[in-house]
Amino acid sequence: MFKNSRAVSIEWGDCDPAGIVFYPRYFAYFDAATANLFDAAGFKKIEMLKKFNALGFPMVDTRAKFYIPSRYGDEVEIVSTVTEFRRSSFDVHHQLLKDGKLAVEGFETRVWTIRDPEDSEKIKSAPLPEEIVTAFMNG
Amino acid sequence: MFKNSRAVSIEWGDCDPAGIVFYPRYFAYFDAATANLFDAAGFKKIEMLKKFNALGFPMVDTRAKFYIPSRYGDEVEIVSTVTEFRRSSFDVHHQLLKDGKLAVEGFETRVWTIRDPEDSEKIKSAPLPEEIVTAFMNG
Amino acid sequence: MFKNSRAVSIEWGDCDPAGIVFYPRYFAYFDAATANLFDAAGFKKIEMLKKFNALGFPMVDTRAKFYIPSRYGDEVEIVSTVTEFRRSSFDVHHQLLKDGKLAVEGFETRVWTIRDPEDSEKIKSAPLPEEIVTAFMNG
Amino acid sequence: MFKNSRAVSIEWGDCDPAGIVFYPRYFAYFDAATANLFDAAGFKKIEMLKKFNALGFPMVDTRAKFYIPSRYGDEVEIVSTVTEFRRSSFDVHHQLLKDGKLAVEGFETRVWTIRDPEDSEKIKSAPLPEEIVTAFMNG
Repeated sequence: MFKNSRAVSIEWGDCDPAGIVFYPRYFAYFDAATANLFDAAGFKKIEMLKKFNALGFPMVDTRAKFYIPSRYGDEVEIVSTVTEFRRSSFDVHHQLLKDGKLAVEGFETRVWTIRDPEDSEKIKSAPLPEEIVTAFMNG
Repeated sequence: MFKNSRAVSIEWGDCDPAGIVFYPRYFAYFDAATANLFDAAGFKKIEMLKKFNALGFPMVDTRAKFYIPSRYGDEVEIVSTVTEFRRSSFDVHHQLLKDGKLAVEGFETRVWTIRDPEDSEKIKSAPLPEEIVTAFMNG
Repeated sequence: MFKNSRAVSIEWGDCDPAGIVFYPRYFAYFDAATANLFDAAGFKKIEMLKKFNALGFPMVDTRAKFYIPSRYGDEVEIVSTVTEFRRSSFDVHHQLLKDGKLAVEGFETRVWTIRDPEDSEKIKSAPLPEEIVTAFMNG
Repeated sequence: MFKNSRAVSIEWGDCDPAGIVFYPRYFAYFDAATANLFDAAGFKKIEMLKKFNALGFPMVDTRAKFYIPSRYGDEVEIVSTVTEFRRSSFDVHHQLLKDGKLAVEGFETRVWTIRDPEDSEKIKSAPLPEEIVTAFMNG
């Protein structure tokens, strides 16, 4: 399965009075990492949504486990991959590495959504475009 | 001119490794305080925008001066007022008080905007609705 | 077990281009809700840490499930409770209710930590003070 | 005077329901850009503070002017420079460029601070280290 890695610099404003990353910021890193993963697979988020007439892939369930704290000035690496594609949902796994060690792990379940053709005010889940699944499988 | 005051609790996640509020967060407090000011004057932001067919009042110029730092657990008060209404722009002044002392001062210039009737992709400035100006003047 | 409820106004700056709360912000709400829970139980975080010579209760594992999106202007309620106290860790459960319906659920496992008496640069887990556990049990 | 430029990708979570960057986030970008400017001049913030026994350079006055909005997916550039060094304070100027055009301008006045040698609970301003000023002048 296609994998992507990105470097992140821990910034002063991401850290709390204990001097370590305020954990909700890890979820913001991971959200950007998922967009980046699709981008690297050839699907830049904005263009992808337009192309497939989709609204997005909102989160339905996410979890993170924290093993090693990170501090301002640290340079970390986030390795992301889709671990499973289902009909209209998929799972993403993020490993945040600090000096090569697993520091934080993130898990996401997201749903592919489109505008309801019968009621444009509503959104509904839809099958994941085959082109995307294939690109990740062969990546 | 109409004034409004709101209490804000400084939260852990708003503070940085120096233990004090990360200053960009003051701008988020002030943005919410401006929405709150309009709300208190009788114009709940979402409904107001719909009613006057407006898009919003984006910031064009903002400044803050920092006198006393605030820490996690502090309860502060933000006193907000519009200091001037012009044709399509207006100025807001915020005073963040800690134990009754001026701790941070914020200044905003915002513009009232609508969707360009000739090109719905564009936004343009528009005269401030008289009803809003009058409500603030008499407040 | 002691429960606490707090009202939260969804602010403009908490929402994303889809018009709904950017999900990492829910974790910031929940972090504040946990501090608030202890506060309501009689243990204001800063004073509690000083009193018990503790460093904090960092997150080791957190999860959230998203059922109904919330938008700018929504007023939601977060109901928080500790679901289990163990020797040096505990679990918190948050229910974010919108119009009385469960919109987001948050789960946290946190560890009570102190400064390592043998190496002040290090932190280590420590037994939860009995006084805190008792207060929650009888709450 | 020494200048530094850094690329910033506008992320989904930095944008608001109007689809544009929530302006407090620009201040977070600028704060990181100032740290980056010192880093590029040879003074990595954490090490610099240790070396000169300083506490930091807190903001005392900041302002931003917004000319062109930026959206999710935009790649912008921030060009930063110190415009003036005084005895214990200095001014930073940031230009955020989008497609080569000035989109946002930021102005900062910061103060160099140390721990008060007579009362370690207090902080006080102190003369800027000559080594830093010289490095910027010759940069």
